[in-house]
Amino acid sequence: MHIKKSLILVVNDDGINAPGIKSLIAVAKEFGDVVVVAPDKPQSGMGHAITLDSTLHINKTDIAGVVAYSCSGTPVDCVKIAVNKLLDRRPDLIVSGINHGSNSSINVIYSGTMSAAVEGALEKIPSIGFSLLNHSIDADFTASKHYAKKIIAHVLANDFSKEMCLNVNIPNLDTDLIAGIKVCRQAKGNWEEEYDERSDPMGRTYYWLTGKFVINDDGKDTDEWALANNYVSIVPVQPDITDYSLSNNIKSLENV
Amino acid sequence: MHIKKSLILVVNDDGINAPGIKSLIAVAKEFGDVVVVAPDKPQSGMGHAITLDSTLHINKTDIAGVVAYSCSGTPVDCVKIAVNKLLDRRPDLIVSGINHGSNSSINVIYSGTMSAAVEGALEKIPSIGFSLLNHSIDADFTASKHYAKKIIAHVLANDFSKEMCLNVNIPNLDTDLIAGIKVCRQAKGNWEEEYDERSDPMGRTYYWLTGKFVINDDGKDTDEWALANNYVSIVPVQPDITDYSLSNNIKSLENV
Repeated sequence: MHIKKSLILVVNDDGINAPGIKSLIAVAKEFGDVVVVAPDKPQSGMGHAITLDSTLHINKTDIAGVVAYSCSGTPVDCVKIAVNKLLDRRPDLIVSGINHGSNSSINVIYSGTMSAAVEGALEKIPSIGFSLLNHSIDADFTASKHYAKKIIAHVLANDFSKEMCLNVNIPNLDTDLIAGIKVCRQAKGNWEEEYDERSDPMGRTYYWLTGKFVINDDGKDTDEWALANNYVSIVPVQPDITDYSLSNNIKSLENV
Repeated sequence: MHIKKSLILVVNDDGINAPGIKSLIAVAKEFGDVVVVAPDKPQSGMGHAITLDSTLHINKTDIAGVVAYSCSGTPVDCVKIAVNKLLDRRPDLIVSGINHGSNSSINVIYSGTMSAAVEGALEKIPSIGFSLLNHSIDADFTASKHYAKKIIAHVLANDFSKEMCLNVNIPNLDTDLIAGIKVCRQAKGNWEEEYDERSDPMGRTYYWLTGKFVINDDGKDTDEWALANNYVSIVPVQPDITDYSLSNNIKSLENV
């Protein structure tokens, strides 16, 4: 009897050469066949951007013994072209990351890593984005791999929704210091931006975005609470952004 | 007595030279002081992308007699740098568009026009994105201007939430053929993608994204229903993408 192995698509936003994706490939290989489609350069903060007005270029390579394609587009482009062009069958699971840096709270909407996962769910393929709370290129992914393995195993073993998308954030701690896993909601938060203003050698002004993240939420059911208390946070996410709480308040707009 | 006029920030994603933004500036000028901060080139499909790894450049100009800044970044960058650097006071309202093409249903998450409006609401400034269901550079914005004026007047006259964000889509019809306004929810839909594969003069393969939009929703309370029935659709939107319906189903992940 031939049992078809799971096919797992691995994507990210830090680019195909980031250390984080190698950690995720290593975990994914324990569960089936793996194909990588990832941006050919860093694409952090690309949100749900897609390439409409220019062409996409793909180069086939391999990483850690698995077939890999580098893509000139965004993380969401990688998912779209993987599922609709490059793969010869539909993946059973899409995993994105492991991102170098947090995608908790409002960061989920700026994140290429998470937008790729949301796109996977829109393709009706269960998708999980993983992020480690450490931006460093030298980050230690040991605990992240430990939890990614547990979470992937549970998702593959259970018949959750095909449109399931999980935002998993992992504290920057050794495995034995992590308190466990919490299923959470997205904390309310926002960035207070500042722009660092400089002059180029020709005397023209340019700007760098800087800022600090502010949490406006003291709920104990949020991803920020879980992470601050040494838990891995899992927020299930979905793409309907309708503000149902406001619908009745603004009905008067129908009579203007 | 000095009554301070409203300050309205105008942004878009089609770029500072698009005809749609000129229509929106003309409407906004009827309500107060107007400043434009818009991308220096088309940025359709940029979603909630921000510029993290490179610099931003700003050029001051004017459009239709108002102060305007072209920005090298994304639509969301435009809102951030406008509010946090370029403007000398906080705007009372942000309007985005008028977009050349629909941003109904799932298109809201790919849209730079709507992501700029969502960013405005994150800055606690009421924000409205306007889109006309016509991609043409020669689109007729007469009906869009008529409805944008009514909607802006109503929003400025009422004390809705500071975090209010509206996704307004306008049918491609003459004003007298539009049936009115409906407050709606975002229809479920997705893109079925195809990639047009070509060879460049050096024999290398490249791809163009094409596809067709599929609505998976027969509700009469959706933006797609409203637009198909000649109504202007207004969907209030917000940035929490937690899938609350899935939270209980996946609690078992806390015990893996």
